Amino acid sequence: MSHYQAPVRDIQFVIHELLNSETHYQSLSNCEQPGQELIDDILVNGAKFAEQVVAPLNQSGDEEGCRFEGGDVQTPAGFKQAFAQYAEAGWLGLSLPEQYGGQNLPGSCAMMMGEMTGSANHAWSMYGGLSQAPVTCLLTAGSEEQKNTYLPHLISGRWGGTMCLTEAHCGSDVGLIRTKAKSNDDGSYSLSGTKIFISGGEHDLTENIIHAVLARVEGAPSGTKGISLFIVPKFHSDENGNLTERNAVHCGSIEKKMGLKGSATCVMNFDGATGYLVGEENSGLEVMFKIMNSARIGTALQGVSMGENSFQGALNYARERTQMRALTGPANPDGEADPIIEHPDVRRMLLTQKALNEGSRALIYWLAQLVDQSKYGNEENARAADDLLSLLTPIAKAFCTEVGVEVTNLGIQVLGGHGYIRDNGQEQIARDARIATLYEGTTGIQALDLLGRKVMGSQGTLLRNFTKRIHKFCEAAGNNEAMKPFIEPLRTLNKQWGELTMAIGSKAMSDPNEVGAASVDYTMFSGYVALAYMWAQMAQLAQQKIAEGVEAPEFYQAKLATAEFYFQRLLPRADSHSKAAEASGKAMMALSQDAFAFL
Amino acid sequence: MSHYQAPVRDIQFVIHELLNSETHYQSLSNCEQPGQELIDDILVNGAKFAEQVVAPLNQSGDEEGCRFEGGDVQTPAGFKQAFAQYAEAGWLGLSLPEQYGGQNLPGSCAMMMGEMTGSANHAWSMYGGLSQAPVTCLLTAGSEEQKNTYLPHLISGRWGGTMCLTEAHCGSDVGLIRTKAKSNDDGSYSLSGTKIFISGGEHDLTENIIHAVLARVEGAPSGTKGISLFIVPKFHSDENGNLTERNAVHCGSIEKKMGLKGSATCVMNFDGATGYLVGEENSGLEVMFKIMNSARIGTALQGVSMGENSFQGALNYARERTQMRALTGPANPDGEADPIIEHPDVRRMLLTQKALNEGSRALIYWLAQLVDQSKYGNEENARAADDLLSLLTPIAKAFCTEVGVEVTNLGIQVLGGHGYIRDNGQEQIARDARIATLYEGTTGIQALDLLGRKVMGSQGTLLRNFTKRIHKFCEAAGNNEAMKPFIEPLRTLNKQWGELTMAIGSKAMSDPNEVGAASVDYTMFSGYVALAYMWAQMAQLAQQKIAEGVEAPEFYQAKLATAEFYFQRLLPRADSHSKAAEASGKAMMALSQDAFAFL
Repeated sequence: MSHYQAPVRDIQFVIHELLNSETHYQSLSNCEQPGQELIDDILVNGAKFAEQVVAPLNQSGDEEGCRFEGGDVQTPAGFKQAFAQYAEAGWLGLSLPEQYGGQNLPGSCAMMMGEMTGSANHAWSMYGGLSQAPVTCLLTAGSEEQKNTYLPHLISGRWGGTMCLTEAHCGSDVGLIRTKAKSNDDGSYSLSGTKIFISGGEHDLTENIIHAVLARVEGAPSGTKGISLFIVPKFHSDENGNLTERNAVHCGSIEKKMGLKGSATCVMNFDGATGYLVGEENSGLEVMFKIMNSARIGTALQGVSMGENSFQGALNYARERTQMRALTGPANPDGEADPIIEHPDVRRMLLTQKALNEGSRALIYWLAQLVDQSKYGNEENARAADDLLSLLTPIAKAFCTEVGVEVTNLGIQVLGGHGYIRDNGQEQIARDARIATLYEGTTGIQALDLLGRKVMGSQGTLLRNFTKRIHKFCEAAGNNEAMKPFIEPLRTLNKQWGELTMAIGSKAMSDPNEVGAASVDYTMFSGYVALAYMWAQMAQLAQQKIAEGVEAPEFYQAKLATAEFYFQRLLPRADSHSKAAEASGKAMMALSQDAFAFL
Repeated sequence: MSHYQAPVRDIQFVIHELLNSETHYQSLSNCEQPGQELIDDILVNGAKFAEQVVAPLNQSGDEEGCRFEGGDVQTPAGFKQAFAQYAEAGWLGLSLPEQYGGQNLPGSCAMMMGEMTGSANHAWSMYGGLSQAPVTCLLTAGSEEQKNTYLPHLISGRWGGTMCLTEAHCGSDVGLIRTKAKSNDDGSYSLSGTKIFISGGEHDLTENIIHAVLARVEGAPSGTKGISLFIVPKFHSDENGNLTERNAVHCGSIEKKMGLKGSATCVMNFDGATGYLVGEENSGLEVMFKIMNSARIGTALQGVSMGENSFQGALNYARERTQMRALTGPANPDGEADPIIEHPDVRRMLLTQKALNEGSRALIYWLAQLVDQSKYGNEENARAADDLLSLLTPIAKAFCTEVGVEVTNLGIQVLGGHGYIRDNGQEQIARDARIATLYEGTTGIQALDLLGRKVMGSQGTLLRNFTKRIHKFCEAAGNNEAMKPFIEPLRTLNKQWGELTMAIGSKAMSDPNEVGAASVDYTMFSGYVALAYMWAQMAQLAQQKIAEGVEAPEFYQAKLATAEFYFQRLLPRADSHSKAAEASGKAMMALSQDAFAFL
């Protein structure tokens, strides 16, 4: 049985109190402007759905996995019904245009449901997530006709979707794509090639599947400049949306994976499949990057989803399991031992989970608001949001998924040997969470994007833009004595961020490898600073609420204690990442390939 | 197909060059004194066995798992034959007394084989490992008759063995054991109760299984003072070792686990099973601690075993997989991309694996020599070895298994999305490695043992004993200019170790929870310093060899580069652990159980 309970109170704290949803939504135009009541309605109904419909299928979905037979994929029992309910309730179209059946809410409103379904059942949530890929492609660059043909059915959940990018020889290096597109007389193209790692490439949840496919038109330039984007439906359809003939795209097999077993990861064969160009020829990557940026925030969120579920499992266990006496004497004198939550090291693990989860949640929900601003804000806000997103998206994707791996591993550790047993659920969460540092661009790819493209590529402008913001916050909050334990270290690290960047930049002038050598440690450093900024804001808010004499101050006191824990016990890691990033990469690069092992 | 190749050269470097096996073995008495040739023979033959017989069963063993039917356990195909070959070749008795069929070599000689079989097939290696448990019990406290009855068959591999400690309500807290022993008129006892997590509790590799069982004699004191140790055979036997009647101990079920699927983890029911007391009543834990100490070093070694296997898989992939161009220009101009080992961040991951593996290997093989000294050294050496082992065993167990989890996760990361796919082998290694921070005492239990019992319990004597040794090394090596990059940070951290200990000790005077709150970070700090000590010695040796103009200096150059990597990029973590351990635990402990989450 699933233990998951949606953290409604904490999400409300982040959205309404920390991020002032009211003010935020009022500043947007060309979309619905939800008030607090609507947000809370979405949240509470979403919570119910995640807890009652989706979570119960999580463990059984892992046990059963997907089955591949004769080209068809059967998803685990219950997945199809849950998806139908989800689609029926309109969740797929929450933040999509009304004219195609959506509800035209800003994207941040869909974030909450993304978190909750991700916690409740990561594998199941992949199907709905992936159907957003062709939607985003079409909204970005599709023709009116294409939009009208596909969007209503994708948004209603009658049809599903995928993103077909990776090939066997081509993962991070998109420029190597070989799938070919040959133009036909009727304006369509014939696609041939094989894609791998296609989530939801084939399944039984929907009557049709719309693939967004990257391919190379015959005669196109080599590398990234010759890649085009196509829509390839599994079934063609007539003007009423009725399915007609089967297209020549088929699932060749599904992968056996470490986790995420209820999500079908497919090899997709395109054997002269008919595809429809989206946008211009050779402009496919541009569109893809749009999708990638939102997918990266979505993946960062999976770190929190998995972390939250793992934390709840560990916390339940720590409250119930009795073992040994508290170091200060019996806390449960009538029992033969004390609940292990009384042991300081168990608290250290739980608070590490809690501090990383809640800090990451705050960061990601803020990014979701920035995405709203980028899309629906006035020009000035939109530009500012874009700049922040450029910098913070790779940080969030890399950092939140890496700490997601740590947090879910701690979720096993709290249970001791019992954490290793499948029935207890914690090991599944860790296996499922492990994918998040790998897909949508590995941590290494995010780090190169951050340090190489964003920070160095903007001559530091994008970074200064953010460090100035942190600086201002420190200036404003720094006079408050109670805030000093947060402001002082944040101020120091914020300054150090600039210095570290300069130091790497100057090394990189003589050796470009220094950027790569420093990149992941630099990214993790950045993540710890970004989370410190979020935690300092949350601490400030908690202090204010407590000072105001809010009713039931326990929530805010716990927030404050968690902020303290983060600053005292986790933030020191920033310094070790900074030192590692500063170190020269020369010796590392000088080693010959043969010298890595003498076997 | 398995990629594993035993790291013979590196093990030889550690044993012969770093740890002077010749001098070491000559200083022992009452055991065989193997020369370098014999050691190399054992190593090369062991390597062949691990690579050719055991490794090929690793992936299939994981896929197939163990099957439980009607009380019997069927191990994966090939396990039984491989175990028979292993036993036949005499591997089980390598370091056991000649009079019972062993070869009387010092224990460190068995360490190499432990590493290699552990890398090749962790699950399979569990069966042979566990049969050592009753052997150690009996050698420590068994009667002559008991030894003669059981040891020859355990050592020949005709019979297997287990250690039955954990019960459902009692893991770390051994004092809660409820399994009852009622004394019978014939001097035997009748045992009743249920044990869980019993590795190899039932299997088809041997005709009989000898359980070493902790239980409480009727009327014994409560807690840890009332625990006795019993031998409970699955089958009784006559004086010729022929099996007679079945004993009332049965396997009730086996666990589904995250990994280690080829190793049967059993629920064992004792229904008035006949057991034989080993040693005195109520002295069971004393004997158990002897086993635990060697089991902890063995578990630390599993961190290295898993890490090495993961590293090799990642290295092979990084050399073969081409993706993107090196930042300094094409390294493989004829191909469409460069091998990813040319990318600095991939090197960072591989070198992190390599530095942690090789440092841990050096530490653990040194501990194995200390165990030899403790057992076969002269009185002075034995005492010194015991003192070092007391301190270093929990450090090694906690640190080497924690970094084992990190290293095997990196082994997935190097492969990107391909690391998540079962066929590529890397995810299995990470799943198998995950158990090591949990069993034989979790990291938290090791940390309490280290900081509470060993360091604080000896008023710092055991620690000073080691830091003085490091200090002496620094004094002796410090005049060498080339060694300064290693000696300076080691000296600083060595001093910091004492200061940190004092700081925690002084906090703990007013609040015992401070010990628990600091313990794991303190242990990780200690591990990084201990590895720095090993790496500084390896760097010194490598520099000497290079200066001497050794033939084929590449091995030593790589050692030196790895030492530099460790000091520059990994050792800075020590400081973040120190800061976390220094922080007050008060806020953490003040939080009410309810305040951890508001759901």
